[in-house]
Order: sequence, then C-alpha cells, then structure tokens
Amino acid sequence: MDRRNPPEEHRIKPTLDEIFSPRGVAVVGASPHNLSFAELVVHSLKETKFPAVFPVNPKHKEVLGLPCYPTLTDIPGVVDHVVVSIPAEAVLKLLDDCVAKRVKSVHFFTAGFGETGEAEKEELERTMLLKAKAGGFRIIGPNCVGLYVPKSRLVNSLNSSLEPGPIAFISQSGGHAQNLPDYSRARGLRFSKVVSYGNALDVNESELLDYFSRDPETEIIAAYIEGVKDGGRFLKAMTEAAVQKPVVIYKGGRTEAGRRATYGHTASLTSSVAVFDALCRQARVIQVDDLDEMIDVLTALRFIRLLPRDIGVALIGAGGGPSVLASDEMEKEGLRVPGLSPAIQAELKQRFPVAGSIFTNPLDTPNLIVPEAISIAMQVFGRVPEVAMLIYHLGFHPISRWGWGRLSLERFVSSAIGVMKEAQRKTEKPVLLALRPPQDPEGMVEFLPAQQAFVKAGLPVFYSMRQLARAMVRVITWNKSGPDSRGQRKK
Amino acid sequence: MDRRNPPEEHRIKPTLDEIFSPRGVAVVGASPHNLSFAELVVHSLKETKFPAVFPVNPKHKEVLGLPCYPTLTDIPGVVDHVVVSIPAEAVLKLLDDCVAKRVKSVHFFTAGFGETGEAEKEELERTMLLKAKAGGFRIIGPNCVGLYVPKSRLVNSLNSSLEPGPIAFISQSGGHAQNLPDYSRARGLRFSKVVSYGNALDVNESELLDYFSRDPETEIIAAYIEGVKDGGRFLKAMTEAAVQKPVVIYKGGRTEAGRRATYGHTASLTSSVAVFDALCRQARVIQVDDLDEMIDVLTALRFIRLLPRDIGVALIGAGGGPSVLASDEMEKEGLRVPGLSPAIQAELKQRFPVAGSIFTNPLDTPNLIVPEAISIAMQVFGRVPEVAMLIYHLGFHPISRWGWGRLSLERFVSSAIGVMKEAQRKTEKPVLLALRPPQDPEGMVEFLPAQQAFVKAGLPVFYSMRQLARAMVRVITWNKSGPDSRGQRKK
Repeated sequence: MDRRNPPEEHRIKPTLDEIFSPRGVAVVGASPHNLSFAELVVHSLKETKFPAVFPVNPKHKEVLGLPCYPTLTDIPGVVDHVVVSIPAEAVLKLLDDCVAKRVKSVHFFTAGFGETGEAEKEELERTMLLKAKAGGFRIIGPNCVGLYVPKSRLVNSLNSSLEPGPIAFISQSGGHAQNLPDYSRARGLRFSKVVSYGNALDVNESELLDYFSRDPETEIIAAYIEGVKDGGRFLKAMTEAAVQKPVVIYKGGRTEAGRRATYGHTASLTSSVAVFDALCRQARVIQVDDLDEMIDVLTALRFIRLLPRDIGVALIGAGGGPSVLASDEMEKEGLRVPGLSPAIQAELKQRFPVAGSIFTNPLDTPNLIVPEAISIAMQVFGRVPEVAMLIYHLGFHPISRWGWGRLSLERFVSSAIGVMKEAQRKTEKPVLLALRPPQDPEGMVEFLPAQQAFVKAGLPVFYSMRQLARAMVRVITWNKSGPDSRGQRKK
Repeated sequence: MDRRNPPEEHRIKPTLDEIFSPRGVAVVGASPHNLSFAELVVHSLKETKFPAVFPVNPKHKEVLGLPCYPTLTDIPGVVDHVVVSIPAEAVLKLLDDCVAKRVKSVHFFTAGFGETGEAEKEELERTMLLKAKAGGFRIIGPNCVGLYVPKSRLVNSLNSSLEPGPIAFISQSGGHAQNLPDYSRARGLRFSKVVSYGNALDVNESELLDYFSRDPETEIIAAYIEGVKDGGRFLKAMTEAAVQKPVVIYKGGRTEAGRRATYGHTASLTSSVAVFDALCRQARVIQVDDLDEMIDVLTALRFIRLLPRDIGVALIGAGGGPSVLASDEMEKEGLRVPGLSPAIQAELKQRFPVAGSIFTNPLDTPNLIVPEAISIAMQVFGRVPEVAMLIYHLGFHPISRWGWGRLSLERFVSSAIGVMKEAQRKTEKPVLLALRPPQDPEGMVEFLPAQQAFVKAGLPVFYSMRQLARAMVRVITWNKSGPDSRGQRKK
C-alpha cells in the first residue's frame, strides 16, 4: 500500500497555517526534573508565556508548576498541537486519544521508529499514518524536535527569540533546527517558522517547500535535507519555490561516512550526491556545505539590499598582514580584488598618510580605524567601476582596541555605521563587514555589543574573510544565473 | 655595493640571545595621550613591570608617569634595546646616539622606508645598515612591531601573556605578530619569542630560522613570510630548521592581489607561489593558508603527544545532524571515518539506548553528554584498528547546556577531562575536541571557562570540524613524510 494515499479521509485535514498557530499545546511524557526533551518543551513554553500548556503524564500531578493530566482526554482546554515523548510502544493508544481530543497536529520527538530499520517499527509507522489520516490530524516527525514559530510563541528550545523574521528553515535534523536560530541570532537572522520534520512520515520537505514558497511571512527558504523519498515531487517543489524566493539547501550525507550517518539518523537512503547537485542546479537553488556556510549565505541574502552580480571587491582595513591575508582569501575563494588606476592611487596618496600605508586595493592605512578615513576610502572606491562591493575588515585585537581609545569603541561603531550607510547610499554598492571576533573574555565583552550595533543597522557581518568570500561567491553565482528582473533583489 | 656585506665591523655584534633579554629599553618618539605605537609600548612595558623603560622625546618631560628624556644619550641607565617611532627623516641623527649609547638593538616601528619604492628611501636604508654594522648594534625592521619575549617581560601589545611557551613565531607582518599570540591564547598556545621583522633590513627570516632551530626554549617554529631576499640562504635555513623541529609557514601573497599588497607592505617581490611551495615540500615544512589554520596546526603540534600517522577518526558526540555534518567535514577534508565491524556495532547497541542513537561511526547517542558514556565510547573505539584518533564534538547550544543541568557544566567538564585523559592513556590514541563556540553572551560566559579547563588539561581544542580536519590532514601528511624515528614525537 502506498503510505501516502490511504483509502479515505474522514475529517478535513488542518492547514499548515492552522498547525503553526495552535491555541493549546499538550506535552505528553513530561516529567519534572528529569531534563528530558518533554520537560524542556514545557520549560520553554513557560519561558515564552505560551498561553495554554498542558503536561500529560499519569505518574505526576504537576510538572514545573503546571497541573499535569493523566491522559490527553483529561485536559479541560482546547488542544491543537501535541508534543509526544513516550516510547514507540505506547503511541497507538495515544493516537486514539488525539482523535478523541480532535487535535490538529502531533509532533513525535520520540525516536525508535522507521530509522531503526526494523520491520515491525515500519509497520507501526504505517498504522500511525492511517490513524492520522482518519482522525484528521497531521504528524510531524517522528524523530525530530518539531516546531518553532516565534509569532505564535511556540518554541522547542531555550532562550528562543520571539522576534519573527523573513527566513523559514525546514530541517530533517532536530539538532540543526535548534542550532541554526541559536548560532545565527547574533548575526541578526530571525525566522518566520522553523520545522524539524525527522523521518517525514506525513509532513515532508516537499509539502513544506510548497507552503513556504507561498507563505507571505517568508522571504528566504533554508533547508537541511538528508534524503527525500519522492525525488520527482521534491524537484518540482524545489523548482517552484526557487522561482518565488531564494532557496538555500544544505544536504547532509555527502560522503560515505555522512551517508552511513544519515541512514542511522533518519533512515534516509540518499541518492547520489552528483544527482542531488544536478537537481539543485537545475532548480536554481543555492547549495552550502555546512551550517556555518548556511548562516553566511543567509546573512548575505537577508542584509544586502542590492545583491551584486560581479565579483570585484574593495578591501578596506588597517594592517599590512591582515590586508595581504584578506586579498589572498578573496581571490582564493573566487572573488576578485581589482587593482587601481594611477589616478585613483594618486588620489588615495593625497588623502592618507604615506608611512605605513598600502595605496592599492587592498587599501591599508593606519587611520582606517577612524570613521572619517573609512568614509573617504569608501567614496573613492565607490567610483571604481570594477568594484561591486565595499568590504571593511577589522580584527578585534588589543591594538585596534587601543586605537579606539581615542573616541571609545561605542562612538567608533556608531560613527562607522553612519559613514558606511552613507557610502552605501551614495555609491549604490553594498558594504560588507568582516569582523574577526576576539578569543578572550575581555575582548568578547567589547565585540558582542559592537557586532550587535552593526547588525541592528542592517549591515551584513561575517566572522572571517574566507567565510565572507565563500558565501558571496555562492550568492553572486546564483544571482548572475537568474533572470534580469530579479538581478537586483529589493526587500 | 652588497648591503649585507659592509666593509668592516668596528664592534662585536651582539647575539640574538642578548637582544632578546635587554636590561633597559628606550622608546624614542613616545608622547603622552596620542595613542601612538610608542605610547602603546611604554604602556605595555609598564603593564608587564619591565624594570627599566625610558621614554625619549624632547617635547615632553613625562610620559605615562615616567621621566621622559630629550635624547637617548641623556638617559642615565643602561639601554640595550631602542624602540623607534619617529619620521624616517630623523633616524640618522638617532643612530649616532645609538652608537654613543652603545645599544645592542634598534627596532624601527617607523615605516616609510624601502617599502615606499622611492630611491632615496632605499639609500637611507643602506646608510642605516652601515651605521649599525659600524656601531655594533642590530636593526629590527624597519616597518614592524619588533619583539615579544615573555620571559624578559619585553612586550609590544596590550594584555600580553608573560607565560613563556615552546613556540617561536617570526613574522614579516606586525599585525600578525601581535594577533597570533592574542588569537591563540585561549587555545593554550604560548611563545618563547615572537619577532616581527618587517622589511628585514638587517635581522632577517633566515638568521631567525637558524637561531630558533638551535634555541633550547623553542620546540616549534612558526613563520609568516611575504617574500625573501636570498632564496638560497632561506632554503638552507628552512631545511635545517625543519630537521630539528616542526616548522609551520604561512606565506602571504599567494594571489595576484595578495602579491600587490605584499609589495606595498614590505616591498616583497615574491617569487612564484609554485616555486615557494616546492621549496617548502623539499624542506619538509608544513604550509598553512591563513592565521586560523596556523593556530589549528600549532594546536595539534603542541598538544598531541603521539601525532597520528593514519587518517582514521572515531566521531563521538550527541546529535544526528551534527554527526552527519561531522562525518561529511572529516571526509571532505581528507580524513576517514571508518565503518565498524558487526561485533563492535553489537557491543555499542548493548551499552547505549537504542532510541535516538546511531550505532556506527559516527556514534551518536543522546547520553554522549554524560562523561561515563563518553568513556565507554572511547574505550570501544580504542579497539578499532582503523581508528587513529578519538574526536569528541560538542556544540555549545542551549540544549547541551540543558543536558548539563544534571551535573552542572563545571562538573561535566572536569569529569569529561578525566575520562578523556584516561581513554588517551589506555587506548594510546589521542583525544581531540571540536567545541563549537556559542554566539551569544550568555553562552560565551559558559564556553570560555569550559574551554579553558580542557586546554589546561592539555587537550587540543578546535572550533569546528572543518578546522580540525584541515589541520590534522596537514599534520598527518607531514608526520608520515618524516623518518620513522620522528614518527611519534614526544614532548
């Protein structure tokens, strides 16, 4: 029997929109003080003040100060969404309760289903799916962390931001689903919805791509995918989504060991990497190699208003060695650092001190940690036709901190933001920042608020020249391959 | 005239050992409150309680609370080392004073010499060199930040560690010379001597390589080089050094733009990258691509007692997605994640919970954030012949923090260190850590002391799987190419 086409549906299937804004959430299998995922969810939903959270566990009267119910049907209020963390053996009885309670979606954190490779577990999954179809609810997972929807206060991790943003993330891995929003928060990335879908028994990557390509709250779609069960449908969904919005895909299991891991993880028998890559090229999606690259590419898509179509960069920053390093990283990764005409070089020589300077591209002069100098440099480079982006690089090491002593880091940052935004406006070329974070506690105390200020001002921040270059090569390649009308994406 | 062979030397040249332990330091060109390099040096030497610091500047009576002298010869005490930050035009008069004061070394921070490409500046450099030879002192630079020698309290940057270590770093760039110790401090790297030598007018890379190959305080030599003036001598020095100790070289100016920058920076006309690379291979040195890779390779050389000769790794860590990512990164960069025999897989299945686990290599089970589980995993993998290294990976995200709640992060770390060191002893395979730093302030507050504890225990810490893999591929390749007797380097 085709598991995706059960004989009939008895109730009207809820829409994903309904699933993303539940009125009440039950957490089945929650215990106090056992540090389980279920307890984490209760804790997190309390943290975000989600209005109706109902722990369910016959062994407890109370979980984290909330009344705990013996079964789902004992809950007095409306329950739209059920988070389940109980052994696989106990789920069928629970699903009957879900039908009785008329819930809309059931998220199984529980693992130990199809991904174990055991025949009886695969049979159990089929039965679960039939019950869901008949009962009119959807299943998320199993073997995942489910939903994170900031505007609904629906969370599945600690310290989650409740500020919604334009990025949707669908992830076959629960770890990545929790990590991406966390690791990218300081970079200013915010999410419309994050869906961890695990074994994809019911809700799967293709349906989610369809949904997000139409979701008005989503401008950029990111996906972590280990394997797809219906390649044809996936290609169609991916292609249609990529026509609407930038789609960024990180495919896990590109190597032999990685594939071994994806099989144990979500039972994904991935097709060949070459085939997957060809499909991605055909569909015009941006592929990345890991979570950090995902963050870098999303940063570029999110914060660069006019995405460049050319690879020429201007490098502006203090320090000879760092300037050499910046140039090498740019060109090794595939961007270009064009040389300057004699006229431009002469102009730079007039406007900056000669000693300790390099009057070329990269431009290095000691006073490039002074906002006025940054401004001059950006205006001059703005007139160089081969330059498509203005990059300011800065290591947060003790010496730059010493230099800021002149006007305090806070004032440096706010003035620098001013001149950079002005340069962006006047030159119509995007300004990108490569800020090298410090490794010491004192340094971090200075770095974090400075980064925050740049990010809040809408400037894209990267942590190294290499990361910036890799991401921009991917984004520019993608942008160049698109129709002219989309060449200059406006937000 | 050959600038390296002046007609005669009137005084006995001081040794580098003498230069690295000066009794008194004069800082010429120091002003109060102008945030110059000279003021930074005075400030830093006061910070480290260097016993005899003498600011020199006819315009001031006092700099940062120290008496300031109009000229070098007015200083009442012994001056062995002179730090100079005055315009190029004023240096000849100063050098006469250096002769009179019988100093041993003069470090020119001052730029604006040969690297400007102007003929009269090149002539000035030749005259400076003649004066130094005649006067019996050595010149460091010009156009550099000079010396950092922890055991002598001789520093050139803020917050410098005074703890000496086994790494020597020679750097044509002042920025890199200050940044490498700073960026690598949290990783546990400490230095015997760091020498920024800029334009290499007198003291140059070859002489320094000769010195450090014999220096008993140095076990590992690191170098940042833009260009060398005498290729034959450099090859000889590099080859001889690499026979004695691991030598790690980061060559700046590998691309066209990078070369343009090195020329403006230190007037280095680098020979072709292919030639340089061939020389490095011939000399058996480890080449790296940037400062971060330098830190990663030094971390491996410094903290892995028995350097592996094989590329097989065991991946141990919680999380399906992160395990897939780890596997992919390892194999993409050139390491291998060998599969397990049925017997070993069966053993793992017995010892870990089935749900949510991947019983292969990578091993992923939820309780791998519990030290006892790490211990079991490492003992089992220790018996797999294809595994040469045990890698524990951990993202510092909210969920791992939640997991540690059980026994507090501090206790987790100290127990984990115990089991890892025991595993290292029992299996005779090195344990390497990939700790993904968090991006949020609260996370950093937890991460930094945890990292510190691992580092203090002598464990090598890397910040990503990719960085770990890249560095280990370089180190293993180097180690395999060496004579058998050096295969297992002991510290």
